[in-house]
Amino acid sequence: MATPRTRLDPEARRAQLVGLGLEMLSTRPLDKVAIDEIAAVAGISRGLLFHYFPTKRDFHVAVARAASQDLLERTDVGHGLPLLDRLRASVEAFVDHVATNRDAYVAFIRGSSGGDPELLDVYESTRTAFTDRVLDSLGLVDVPPPLLRAAVRGWVALTEEVTVDWLSRGGLDRGEVVDLIDDALVALIAVAGAEDLATGG
Amino acid sequence: MATPRTRLDPEARRAQLVGLGLEMLSTRPLDKVAIDEIAAVAGISRGLLFHYFPTKRDFHVAVARAASQDLLERTDVGHGLPLLDRLRASVEAFVDHVATNRDAYVAFIRGSSGGDPELLDVYESTRTAFTDRVLDSLGLVDVPPPLLRAAVRGWVALTEEVTVDWLSRGGLDRGEVVDLIDDALVALIAVAGAEDLATGG
Repeated sequence: MATPRTRLDPEARRAQLVGLGLEMLSTRPLDKVAIDEIAAVAGISRGLLFHYFPTKRDFHVAVARAASQDLLERTDVGHGLPLLDRLRASVEAFVDHVATNRDAYVAFIRGSSGGDPELLDVYESTRTAFTDRVLDSLGLVDVPPPLLRAAVRGWVALTEEVTVDWLSRGGLDRGEVVDLIDDALVALIAVAGAEDLATGG
Repeated sequence: MATPRTRLDPEARRAQLVGLGLEMLSTRPLDKVAIDEIAAVAGISRGLLFHYFPTKRDFHVAVARAASQDLLERTDVGHGLPLLDRLRASVEAFVDHVATNRDAYVAFIRGSSGGDPELLDVYESTRTAFTDRVLDSLGLVDVPPPLLRAAVRGWVALTEEVTVDWLSRGGLDRGEVVDLIDDALVALIAVAGAEDLATGG
């Protein structure tokens, strides 16, 4: 599976290595992404890999950031659709992406960040980005009412838990999971006293 | 602060040591609960402590289990009250206990289990116990409809996130946080198609 050695400029090489790590996340959790294997597939020495990422942890943080970016991009869909349709499209993309990369997300969401502050920060920033995206689509990202912000933040946690729990336990079909998450947001926006926003968009 | 050496039978000694660890959780996260300090306060040698708990990790797992048990007991309130009042009393107890033991819970919920499978298991079991308690109060713990179980499980994650986010960010008062969590459960039960249960209790 090793590709022939080719000269890449440093930025392209970094991107290639992170991309290989990201691919590996589809079949295993982050802490099982092995440096040796990445170096072999990239056709470079372990030493050269450490030139780009001084420690295994640096590499894992870079891969986690890329995974977060990837998840945020894949769920940034449905622009131009009415608010509720766009929301549903985004929830579908989230559930499908997490289902496809199951081992990595289950481990990540279940806390295999290993208490590492930088990995925790990637996780927190991802939750914040999802929260802001919902508030933005409600036209309220700049000065969100604190109750609505808290409700949306709680919904992001609910979304992760319902998805990961479903992947480990089953019992529902994909449509039921998407409906539950989707309907939960509309209900929680109403609980936060902002129901006009969700139904008026 | 050291107490005089006293002879305790093994079970009482274990309980004493775990109790001291639990007390320490009110001011620091679990991974900062130091073995040396526990031994000093208990008036025993570090060696004797390791006789009861062969590794630091064994001790931390025992303290985490005790913390989970403690949280479950403290929130098991309001028996005899109507369903919604009992729920509210339990949510209040949860928010207050987490607020009092802030550092420990923020770290725990934010993933400082360090990827340790036994600590993750304590965390998962706690979430499951909260989920089952709600289903039990709805009279459905034996054969919960899968959609309702998923909704309640999601609500447990929402409850943790809203509480921990509030403790780190502020912006709401305690009553607003309790109302939000409380109203969220009623709304989510309705989303799961079981609204008769919540209002009929």
